[in-house]
Parts: sequence; C-alpha cells; structure tokens
Amino acid sequence: MSAGNVQVELGERVKAVRRRTLELCAGLTAEDMMVQSCPEASPAKWHLAHTAWFFDSFVLREFLPGYRAFNADFYWLFNSYYESFARFPEKRLRSSFSRPGLEEVVRYREHVDEALGRLLEQGAEPEALRRIELGLNHEEQHQELLLTDILNAFFTNPLRPVYCEGGALYSPLSDARPGVAGMASKGRDFVEFAGGMREMGHRGEGFCFDNELPRHRVWLEPFALAGRLVTCGEFAEFMADGGYRRAELWLSAGWDTVKSRGWRAPLYWTETDGSWSVFTLRGEMPMRWLAAAPVSHVSFYEADAYARWAGHRLATEFEWEAAAEGLKTDGNLLDSGRLMPCAAPDAGECAAQQLLGDCWEWTASAYLGYPGFKALPGTLGEYNGKFMSGQMVLRGGSCVTPAAHIRASYRNFFPPETRWQFSGIRLARQD
Amino acid sequence: MSAGNVQVELGERVKAVRRRTLELCAGLTAEDMMVQSCPEASPAKWHLAHTAWFFDSFVLREFLPGYRAFNADFYWLFNSYYESFARFPEKRLRSSFSRPGLEEVVRYREHVDEALGRLLEQGAEPEALRRIELGLNHEEQHQELLLTDILNAFFTNPLRPVYCEGGALYSPLSDARPGVAGMASKGRDFVEFAGGMREMGHRGEGFCFDNELPRHRVWLEPFALAGRLVTCGEFAEFMADGGYRRAELWLSAGWDTVKSRGWRAPLYWTETDGSWSVFTLRGEMPMRWLAAAPVSHVSFYEADAYARWAGHRLATEFEWEAAAEGLKTDGNLLDSGRLMPCAAPDAGECAAQQLLGDCWEWTASAYLGYPGFKALPGTLGEYNGKFMSGQMVLRGGSCVTPAAHIRASYRNFFPPETRWQFSGIRLARQD
Amino acid sequence: MSAGNVQVELGERVKAVRRRTLELCAGLTAEDMMVQSCPEASPAKWHLAHTAWFFDSFVLREFLPGYRAFNADFYWLFNSYYESFARFPEKRLRSSFSRPGLEEVVRYREHVDEALGRLLEQGAEPEALRRIELGLNHEEQHQELLLTDILNAFFTNPLRPVYCEGGALYSPLSDARPGVAGMASKGRDFVEFAGGMREMGHRGEGFCFDNELPRHRVWLEPFALAGRLVTCGEFAEFMADGGYRRAELWLSAGWDTVKSRGWRAPLYWTETDGSWSVFTLRGEMPMRWLAAAPVSHVSFYEADAYARWAGHRLATEFEWEAAAEGLKTDGNLLDSGRLMPCAAPDAGECAAQQLLGDCWEWTASAYLGYPGFKALPGTLGEYNGKFMSGQMVLRGGSCVTPAAHIRASYRNFFPPETRWQFSGIRLARQD
Amino acid sequence: MSAGNVQVELGERVKAVRRRTLELCAGLTAEDMMVQSCPEASPAKWHLAHTAWFFDSFVLREFLPGYRAFNADFYWLFNSYYESFARFPEKRLRSSFSRPGLEEVVRYREHVDEALGRLLEQGAEPEALRRIELGLNHEEQHQELLLTDILNAFFTNPLRPVYCEGGALYSPLSDARPGVAGMASKGRDFVEFAGGMREMGHRGEGFCFDNELPRHRVWLEPFALAGRLVTCGEFAEFMADGGYRRAELWLSAGWDTVKSRGWRAPLYWTETDGSWSVFTLRGEMPMRWLAAAPVSHVSFYEADAYARWAGHRLATEFEWEAAAEGLKTDGNLLDSGRLMPCAAPDAGECAAQQLLGDCWEWTASAYLGYPGFKALPGTLGEYNGKFMSGQMVLRGGSCVTPAAHIRASYRNFFPPETRWQFSGIRLARQD
Repeated sequence: MSAGNVQVELGERVKAVRRRTLELCAGLTAEDMMVQSCPEASPAKWHLAHTAWFFDSFVLREFLPGYRAFNADFYWLFNSYYESFARFPEKRLRSSFSRPGLEEVVRYREHVDEALGRLLEQGAEPEALRRIELGLNHEEQHQELLLTDILNAFFTNPLRPVYCEGGALYSPLSDARPGVAGMASKGRDFVEFAGGMREMGHRGEGFCFDNELPRHRVWLEPFALAGRLVTCGEFAEFMADGGYRRAELWLSAGWDTVKSRGWRAPLYWTETDGSWSVFTLRGEMPMRWLAAAPVSHVSFYEADAYARWAGHRLATEFEWEAAAEGLKTDGNLLDSGRLMPCAAPDAGECAAQQLLGDCWEWTASAYLGYPGFKALPGTLGEYNGKFMSGQMVLRGGSCVTPAAHIRASYRNFFPPETRWQFSGIRLARQD
Repeated sequence: MSAGNVQVELGERVKAVRRRTLELCAGLTAEDMMVQSCPEASPAKWHLAHTAWFFDSFVLREFLPGYRAFNADFYWLFNSYYESFARFPEKRLRSSFSRPGLEEVVRYREHVDEALGRLLEQGAEPEALRRIELGLNHEEQHQELLLTDILNAFFTNPLRPVYCEGGALYSPLSDARPGVAGMASKGRDFVEFAGGMREMGHRGEGFCFDNELPRHRVWLEPFALAGRLVTCGEFAEFMADGGYRRAELWLSAGWDTVKSRGWRAPLYWTETDGSWSVFTLRGEMPMRWLAAAPVSHVSFYEADAYARWAGHRLATEFEWEAAAEGLKTDGNLLDSGRLMPCAAPDAGECAAQQLLGDCWEWTASAYLGYPGFKALPGTLGEYNGKFMSGQMVLRGGSCVTPAAHIRASYRNFFPPETRWQFSGIRLARQD
Repeated sequence: MSAGNVQVELGERVKAVRRRTLELCAGLTAEDMMVQSCPEASPAKWHLAHTAWFFDSFVLREFLPGYRAFNADFYWLFNSYYESFARFPEKRLRSSFSRPGLEEVVRYREHVDEALGRLLEQGAEPEALRRIELGLNHEEQHQELLLTDILNAFFTNPLRPVYCEGGALYSPLSDARPGVAGMASKGRDFVEFAGGMREMGHRGEGFCFDNELPRHRVWLEPFALAGRLVTCGEFAEFMADGGYRRAELWLSAGWDTVKSRGWRAPLYWTETDGSWSVFTLRGEMPMRWLAAAPVSHVSFYEADAYARWAGHRLATEFEWEAAAEGLKTDGNLLDSGRLMPCAAPDAGECAAQQLLGDCWEWTASAYLGYPGFKALPGTLGEYNGKFMSGQMVLRGGSCVTPAAHIRASYRNFFPPETRWQFSGIRLARQD
Repeated sequence: MSAGNVQVELGERVKAVRRRTLELCAGLTAEDMMVQSCPEASPAKWHLAHTAWFFDSFVLREFLPGYRAFNADFYWLFNSYYESFARFPEKRLRSSFSRPGLEEVVRYREHVDEALGRLLEQGAEPEALRRIELGLNHEEQHQELLLTDILNAFFTNPLRPVYCEGGALYSPLSDARPGVAGMASKGRDFVEFAGGMREMGHRGEGFCFDNELPRHRVWLEPFALAGRLVTCGEFAEFMADGGYRRAELWLSAGWDTVKSRGWRAPLYWTETDGSWSVFTLRGEMPMRWLAAAPVSHVSFYEADAYARWAGHRLATEFEWEAAAEGLKTDGNLLDSGRLMPCAAPDAGECAAQQLLGDCWEWTASAYLGYPGFKALPGTLGEYNGKFMSGQMVLRGGSCVTPAAHIRASYRNFFPPETRWQFSGIRLARQD
C-alpha cells in the first residue's frame, strides 16, 4: 500500500472510531455523563475529553505545524496519569468537572478531529502515524471503559436506569423467548492442547501494545481448557454450596476481601425475597434467564475460588494464548451489539468457544513484563509498564470490547479484587 | 388576619420562596447541578428535588385529598435522613442521580407547587399550614446550602468557574475600587453588655424551629463582644505569627485535625508564589482585596485558636443572643446580592455590627437541647433533635442566608471541624 | 496547721498514695503490665512510670535544689501529652516500651519518692506543695485508669484472666449467695429537687482541678433524679425490646456508631448460646448474677438512647451537682475493695443513692469551660483545658475511683462513644 | 541409614533446633518478648509458643498414643492462620497474651520436647517423621522471624535498645576497624550465565516445601547478574539523586506507596542533622560505616526503582535459581553470628557472591504455583498455597536465616511494600 493510501485508510479509521465513541453516548444525557460511581470509573464525558486529549497531546502538539490548542488548560485537566507529561488532577475529582460542559467537550473533539484530518491530508511522518494508531487503540479501550463505567453508574443510581432496551432477546430462558433452550446446552467438556516449546507474544504484524512484546519462547506442558465460560447457573451452585462462606476455597487475600467487603455474590447480583437478579446494560433480569450465560463481574479471587471448588484451576496466560492463537474475532464483542455476555452456541465439542468476547478471562498469571520487555520511549512508556505490579492478566475481551481491538496476544490487567469489569471464568483442567 | 387571608399570604410566600430557589440556579448548567464535591455537600439538583419532597411527603400526601404522587419512588429517593419516614440512599450516592434529569425535577417542583396552590385555595387545616411554614423555612435552609455547596463544587473544579461576576465591586481595596478605604476602617473595639438574668430562646411570635424552644432563664455575667467580625487581614497576621504551627494555641482535637488534614489557611485560600488568594462565589481574588472583609470558611477549631492567640475567647450562644436581640435583619444577607462577606461599615463605636449576616459566628456553646426541650412529634422530630451531639452552635446567618430566615434566637450547628460553611469569628473579651 | 505539719501530713499522703499504686499491681506480672489493648488504654507499667514522671518533671526538677534526674530520656519518654514541656512518643507506641523494664521503673519510682521526701523534709515552697498535691491527684486518676486498662487487657486476652477472685460475693443473685435478694429490691423512684439560682463549681476549700472553677451562678428549674443507677437487668430489657436496632431511639451520631461498630450490648458483655455473661475485674459472670447491679461500660450514646427508650432523659451536670452537694464519699469506691459496680442497698426512698461511686454517670452536658475559666498557668494548663471539645461530662466516680479523689464538683469527661470506662446511667425525669 | 538411625538423627536435630530458638532469646526479657510493633511482626514469646504448637497439633496429637495436651486452649490460642484446624485470634491481639507467661510457655515447650523425644524413641511412622521434619523447618522460619521482629521492636522503642553488642566488628569502615577497606572493594561487575532449557524447583533429595515443587522445565534466555548485592553507599547515591522524588523511576503502585507513607530512605535509616544512621540488631551505626555493606530493609518497590535508576532490572526467580544451583551455604547466614548484612569479600570476578545469606533478594517474579503445583494434603496445605496472590518471590536467605534452612530452590514471598524483612537488591543486566 502506498504511503498516501496508508494515510487515507488511517483517516477513515480515525473517523469511524471517533464516531463510534459518540454513538455509544447517544442514549446518555449530559447528567449521566457526569457520574463517577466507583474508584475504577470515570465519567463518560471525561472519556470523551481524555480520548481527544491523547491525540491533542501526543500527536497534534508535536506533529502538526501551526497547530493551536483548543484550550491549554486541557493538557493537564484531562491528563490521566502521565507523570512526565504534566500534572494531573486526582482521579476522584473528575466528577466535579461540570465545566467544560458536554457541548464544549464535543467541540474539543471536533477541533481535534479536524486537525487530525489536516495532518493526515498533509502527510504525517511515520512516528505521527504510529501515534495515531496508538491513539485509536487508546480510544477503543475507553469505548469499553465508558460502557463498563455506565453500567456501574446506572447500578449505583437507586432507580436503576437502562442503557439499552431489549435484554430479553439475549436471554435464552427469558419469558420473551421460552423454549430456546438449545443455546444453553453446551456442556463443560474440556478441550485438550498439546504442550511443547511455543512462541508467545505478538508476531509483529499490525498494531500491538508494548506489553505484548517481545515475542519469546515459553515451554508449555500439555493442558486442557473448558470448552466455554462458567455460567451464571453454575456459579449459583457454588453459592448454594456455601462458596462464599468456606475459607478453604479461597486464597488468603481473597478470603480477607470476602469478609471485609461482605461479598456473597458477583457484583450486580441482588437478592430480593430469596431470588437473584442481575443488572446489565439492558436492565435488571431474573438470574434464571441468564442461567446459561457466562457469569461476569467476578474478581480474580472469586474466579480462583470457583475453580478450586470445581476441582480445577485457572489457565496461565500462555496456555490461553496458545489456545486462542489464530482465532477469528467473530465472537460476542461490542460489534455484536448484544452488550451482555450470552450463552455459548452449541457448536460441537471440538473447539473451545467464547475465547474472544463475552467476558475477559482471569488467568493464573501475574501481570509482568516479558523477558526483555522495553516500554515505549518517553512519556508513552507510562502507558502500560508502570502498572506491572499487583495485577493479574485477563485475556480475550468482552461483550463491550471492539472486535478490531482484540487479539490472541492482547494482555489486559487488573488488581485481583476488581469486579467492575466484564470479567469471567474459564476453567483449566487440574491434572 | 382572617383565615382566608392567612392562606392567601402564605400562598404568596410559597410562590416567592419556591421561585427564588430556581433563580439561584439560573447560572448553573444541568452538569453543575450534578456535582457533590465534599461529604457535607449535595448536588444542586438534589436540593431542588429534596425541597419539593419535603412538601410532597409532609404536606400534600397527608393533607390534600385526592393528591397523586408525581413518582412514588421519589419518597425514598429524595429522603435525606428521616429514618421513621422511609429508607433513604447513602448521602454520597446523590452524585449518581443523573436520572431523574433536571427537567424532570423541575416538573416535580411544578407538580408540588400546583398541588400546594390547590391545597391553600381549598383552605388547609392549621397543621397543614404549620407544615407549609416549616417547608418554606426548610427550603430557605437549602437555598443557603445550595450556594454553599456550589462554592465548594466550583472550588473543586480545577478550572475554578465563577458563579457570579463582579467581585471587585465588593472589595474595598480591589483594583476596581482604589481608595474606598473607609469601609475597612472600623476598629476592633469591644461593645459592653450588662449581665443578669435573661430569658433566652424564641418568644413565640412567628415561626421558629423546635430547637429554639422553650424560652428559658439563663444567668449571664457582664460581657463584651467585638464590634465586628475578625477580618482576613487580621487572620493573616495569625498565620504569619505561626498560628497553624503552634500547638499551644489549639484545643487538642483541633491540633490533631490541623496535623492530619495539613491545614495552614482557611478553606478556599490558596497560595501561589507566596501570595494568597481567596476563592468566592464571585471568583478568585487576591487576599489583599479582602483584607478588611471578614475571614470565612474557618472551623470552630480555627476560630477558637485565633481567639486564644488574640488573648480573647468566643462568645457563648447566650451572650450572642442577648447582644442580637431586637436587631433588624438589614445586614449582608442573601437579599443584599453580594454573595460574599464584606467589610463592616464604619458606623461608630456604639453598636456591634455584622451580627446578622456576613458569616455565621462560631460560639463557645455545644449544640444541646434547651431545658425541657421537646422535639416536634413524629417524623419531623428528626429535623433537629437527633443532631444534638458533637456539634457547636453558630449564630447570625451569613451572606447567603435569606433575610426572612434569620433571627436572634436562630441556632445553626455544625461539627467543630466544618469549614465548607460561611463561618467566621467574633471575639468576646476574656475577662 | 503549722507549715511544718502541712509538709508532714502531705509527706504521709505521698507515701500512702504512691504505695497504693504499687499495691494495685500486686497481682500483675511484668508481662501483664506491658499490654495496651485499646486506643484509650496504656500499659500498667507506663502508668507507674508516668506518675513518677509527673513529680519528676513538675516538682523535683523545678523545686529541689541539686536534684539529679534518674534518666534524662524519661522526660520525653514518659510525657503523655504536654506539648509545651517536651516532645512525646505516639501513644500507641507505649506497648513497645519493654525497656525500661519493670524493675527499673520501680527504681525510678523509688528515686522520685526519696527525692519528694527530701524536698518535704527541707520544707518546700507553696507552689511546690501545690504541685505535689496536683501530682497526688494525678496519680489517683492513673490508679483508676490502671484498673480500667487492665480490665480491657484481660478481656482482650482470649483466656480472660481474672484480676481478683471472689466475684460471687458481690453478686446478690450469684450461686454463691442465693437468696440475698434484698439488695436488688430498690425501685427506680425519682427523687425531687427544687430549682432556683444555684452556685456551681468548687467552693475553694481543699484541692480541685482548674476545670471545676470558677464557682458561678446557674439557674436551675426543678428536677427529679432516679434514686439509683440503671441496672443490668433493666438494660437487658432495652436490648430485648430492640434497643440496638431502633434508629428512632438514638442520636444520629450514636446510630452511626452502633452500625459501624456493630454494637449490640455493653462492652464486656458476651453472648454464648443465647445467654449473656459480663466480664469484670473479678472474672466472667452470668449476667443474671448482676441483674440488680448497675450496667457499666456503656457509651454516652447508649445512655442517651436508654433514657429516651425509658421515656426519660439524662441529667445535666448542674442538676447532678446540685443533687450531690454535701454527700459523704462512703459509696462503692476503690476503697470498698469490691472493684465492680454493685446493687444499690435498699435505704428508703428519701435519697438518691450511688451518686458517688459504682459508675461514672454520663450527663447531658458537653465538657466546656465555666464562665471565666482560666487554665493553670504554663505547661500544666494543658492538663484539662485543651480537651474542652467533643467530650461529655461524667460525674460521681466509680468503683475504681479512690474515695479521696471524688467530690460533688468533680468533672470527668470522655468522648461520647467511649465505653472502656466504668460508665453508667442515671435517669432524670422528663417533664 | 537404618530406620532407627533416622529417628536418632532426627531426635538430635529436634534438640538442636529447639535449643537454638531459646538461645536466640537469651538476651531478651519477658517484657521484650511481649512487644508486637508492626502488623507483620509477632511477639517473641508467641514465636516460642507457636513453634511448640506446630508439633503439638500436627505431630503429637495425631501420632503419639496416650499423648495429653499441655493445655487444650493452646490449640486455638497459638494457631496462626490454619482455618481448617481451629479458630484463631486476630493476629494483632498477640500482644495482649500476657498470660500464659513466659515461664509457662517455656514449660509448654519442654512438654512438647519431652513428648517428641518419646515418640521418636518409640519409633514414629513415616508421616510423623515427615511432619517433624516440617516442624523443624517451620521452627527455623520462626527463628528468623523472631530476630526480624525484635529488630523492629527495638527500633520502635524510642530508647533503641541493642540486641547484641559488637557492631563495629562487622563494619569495615567503623572507627573500631579503620583501614580495613579491602572488604568494600568488590566492584559491581556482572557475571554471565548461559540460557537454555533448565529444570527448576527442588530435585527431591532432602526436605523442601510444597511450593518448590514440581520440578519443571523453564526456558531461559542468557542473562547476567551483579557479582554482589547493592550496597548502602550505592543506595545513598540513588537517594542523593532524588530517587524518592522522581515518579518516573517507580512502578505506579510503588509511587503511591512512597507518597502515602512518606518514604525517603530504607526502613531503619534515620537522619539527624543531615547525616544518616542505620539501626541494626547490633545497635545504631553511622551509615558511612556500612557504605560497603548491602542495603537491607527495602521493599520490592524500592528494589525495582533502584534497578531502573541504575539502568538495570531485577532477576527473575528462575535466573536466580539457575545462578545459585549447587552453591554451598557458607555465606553470611545466622550461623555466622554476625546478625547484620556485611560487605562482600573481594573474591575475584568469576563468581556471584552473597547469593546465599546477607539479604533476601527481591526478584521480578510474582509468587505463584509452579505448573502442576499441589499443596500438601489437609490442613498443612494452608502452609504456603493460600498465599499465592499479591506477593513477590525473594530468594537466598539473609544474615538471620539458619544455614540448614536455605537452598537454591527455596522460595520466600512477601507483599511488594514489605520492608521489615532483611530484604535487599541484586541487579540483573538489562539487555
């Protein structure tokens, strides 16, 4: 592809990605976009501004001659955590950013879009193109976070607003779809994988984050993964069997967390008169509608305890990557429009399903640098590297991850007590 | 006055008070009205809804035949703290109430206003009239809180938006008003008051809260109060003299607070390159503009430490009430439109000034029930009585208190570490 | 009395008070004397050292010519909170003071005793005598604290050691004393007191603390106090009636405390298989043994909630003082050797009993300075004055208060959530 | 070796190990042995009792016919964290265990020793022998912890007692040993190691913990380790270069910790008038005496930040194990009696020194189970497995680790913010 074509194509992707971010906000009011309901979350408006800030700070300011900032204060106001770039406000203060208002933030985005267009038209140098590519991936991450955060915001609102109607359509056992039982029938059979010396990490073609590199050799023993994710129904059995009350099932730090936070079900599950419901982006549903759908919004500790209860274990990130290598991204990702994890189709026993999409899968691997890891140079080195402590790796994307964003080598990471993510459980066979 | 006239007059007051609440929001966006920036504060939209809720819950639901609730969920959603009325959401969650949106809340207010009008037209029974009167006073309290909270919200926003322009007009030493030195010239002379047996508490004519009753006898020794409030300039001297670093000036609990919170100036004072500025509803100003204006947003601990440093003390609430009895409410209150404490006019030495308005004055009195205190019956008994623990009495109203709302017997109360209020210092002479 | 006699008599008192402190430790091991089991408490060894420190720092160092310090480091090591005297270690670190060992601390005491004897023999100047008097009162306070703290230490030890055997002797209903029901029969009749203008505070004869002065006029309305303290049996009725679960009975801050700390009974009450026992300095006893004994170790919040539940209120400190004026200190104080609150004798209805001794009585009064209050000059001004914030007054002493230490004008004070003290409840009649 | 010989030899080891535990306490008073000065630490007396408890609970109770418990309450009182064995007191309460007193605890140990002797004489079955072996290793761990905790206890005591005199002897630059500069001269040269497929984990001969198994294949790239540990002098350069003030050097979680805890030097370093001293088991010493000695008592975060500042990285646990395999345990371990990390001897450049002893070495590896990891069956499975979350691996033992206890495959683990351990830094070359 000629350099010009590259720029044109990138320009199209810029437009598409940037447009989608706004589309995800179509059903939200300016007030909705102010809510910051848990320490992990940010207001939707902040996501809109921060994703513009990324291009503004790392692309336009450096690479577009004659570029004029929309508002110089925004460089620090919408900085998230880049210590070497500028100071930044405490994260919890983002809910006080009533000014700039939503309209001004939208204008900020337009200002940035227009300038990006101009830069690409003029012909940007390779480093600028790489940064734009990074900015698009950054924006896709925030698309996912925006939905993750809105789910929490709407759950926190005692009125429990609905982000998107139509939940019954995706619930095989809902009153709206009686009898579509087939979707739930896939068993928990394990799929076998050979061991041996493998190469892990990104192959180098197309975009990847610095934490997916370098590709390196890893020795794997043979292993087996469950053919689908653990379902809500299965998780309810763990609960019924005293799962949250039995210390012996838990890591010590997990058990402390269960007690100090009073956990007795996944986040977004609530009990009324003895029956559970689950809050989703499509509103509150009876748990039994979701019996065959993957359990989501569990912490690493819960995933680990469930696996121990079930007599199994979690996969390492390398086992997972070996299993997922080469898969098509045609699963239940953001592009499916479902916006909630759904039951696995019954597609025979030959392959593991739901590897890409539905829920991020907690692995047994701590988030650390690969051998020879080098962070990006300069400020952008803070993107991933400085978080390599105290977090666990998750793999595979979720129902709110853009399909273009996920791949087998992709490493997501969160502290083990995190539950606000669309995070679920895949078992590996304990040998 | 005939019963009918009473109802007509009350109807007019209802309209005026309710209208003013909305007027105070005229310069605010729906996003501004979502911000809840400190534990003491609530979002402005919540204030709009909660003041409607009060009439809805305690007047209309009980006294208007055929009344239909606007939304039955609002009875618990906008309940603040009335345990015996309904459950209520945790206070800190109010910032997640993006729904109902501002427009719906305004419609809720209209629904309540219309029903109140109907009730008064039909002729309400005496208890209903008393409740409406209480509801108006409740709404006036929230008018003041709304402005107090917006000041905090805008201070928390790193961009420091301005609620209302024109601050320089009220600053005798501002660049906009050079030479208007007269306003600052009033000295700190003390005004003498005789002691003796006094009656304290509300006299029974017109509205009062339950905590102003019963009127009862108190023996007072002779005392003297400063003729005006402590100024920013004077407080800056305390700071310059190491006031925040000298343990011997502080109550033990105050000193612990100074250290744990790192206090070194009043709230809303910030230092840049060695010079202080003060954030107000009229924006940020150089401290020197306000040298003659009362210092505000200090805690009881700071007021007490300042008084000790100055060789004086704070007045008791009864000394204050004895001094203020019979005064006209023509001071710098909300109705003046200044929205910030202003320098005392030089009106001779014969009288204490600024008793009503400018800043609430911390007293040396703990907030406790008067001898024979009876809370209102039923749920409304929770209004004031259950807070009679761990708080100090403040007297006199501030620049954001409606003039109709304040009186000599009025008892405000906050925990001693509170600084988000317009709270200042009046000295009493240490004998 | 001649000056020489004064010194001789004081010398005798010094010996007696100092000896008693050690006698209280007779049953404790050096290890027991290391324990610091709650934020309010100090290790017993620390009490031994700190009471010597007081004489060392404020008497000997200033007034005994040629005095040589036992160990100059002790001046700061055993300073409790006198900011203007020397730095001091954080309170919670006292449990790490394994060195100096107990034997060295005892030698420190002997060093101080010997020097005090020398000073008194030489003839000390009046200020020195006043300081010695203060030091003795200080030591008596710490005798009480030492026992209060050991009770907590032994309750915290899962083996629940016993400080002093023989508890059954003081329990009218214990298995060891069946049928001594008479002690429990005193009813809860109220005793009437006239109102009028009273003088309150210490009369000036004998020792008092600065916070008991100045004596001043207070107007009292007529009132009535319960003839005895609330008993464990009565408090158990409050519990059985849902007292700890009914928000309407509690001050708002009290209710928050009940919820955050999970209170459901007084401190030292534990439930096993549905029946309660109470831990005392004489070991654990069935609650039914103590049904007629005063309930102890309740917070102000619990005292206030109980009174509201009973349809009554707490007395003010001035009502209490008016009732107690002129009483003999012959109640259940430390000198009785009982070491636990005991049932009131049935001595007719004419007088209030248990005013002095058994339990400190929470009053409805906040701890504030009297009109014209002046703290002692210099460092000793920190003794009482700087704590006049956030605390409630308790009156009357307890079963571990030395009889010589208590009087009608004595003001004790603790934060309203405090439960480790021998603190109980006397009702005043709600009019 | 015959079975009988095995039992005899084990009996000798039991005696030797048990005796050494008491010997370590020879210089401590009963009061010293009560102190618990940080959340990680336990009182020395508790270590004495808990190590007896281990044999009592897991060996004698199960395997010695006719065994009578010393005190049945001790089964839960001295349980540390074995949820499936018995309840246990909160860790922080251990400082309140004044009873049982030290003498009783010593008798408890004698009771256990006597019974162990009897069991071995009678001939114990293989599982009992395995448990005794485990108990000895458990006791060796607590020998190390006892010293680690006493160092903290004595540092917390403002008088800074000395555990063991003679520090100057081990300080090449101390005033007591001027001119012994040679010990400090070893440079920081890196030693090269080949990569390739390696087997990692314990080889199966002799004792190991469950977390050292199974031995498994790991692919290593070639690497290089520093020939000695980072010294105090080198770490002081990092400090002088703003190491604690430069966010870019730190992991994000580390930087948060630096700020929230106010770290500016390793634990036990204190600054007076601009010069640093270091507190050790041999008392406080000027830092310059220790310039060539390894820096100790740093967290993983500090180790990682130092490595980044130096342009290098930490080794993985597998690189470390590959380097240490086959080494003799003749380093500066507990048996050397030095009780403090000492400068590396200058032994040529061919080998890495200080791998075993001086300081535990933070690795870049999170503490996780090896592929196929199985915890011990039953209660003893809680020994190591449940802590496999949120901790980093340390390797190599320290100056307070018994020589018999350490080996190349040994995995220690602590949370990344831990500093109370003898934990230091070895660099690996960043490629």
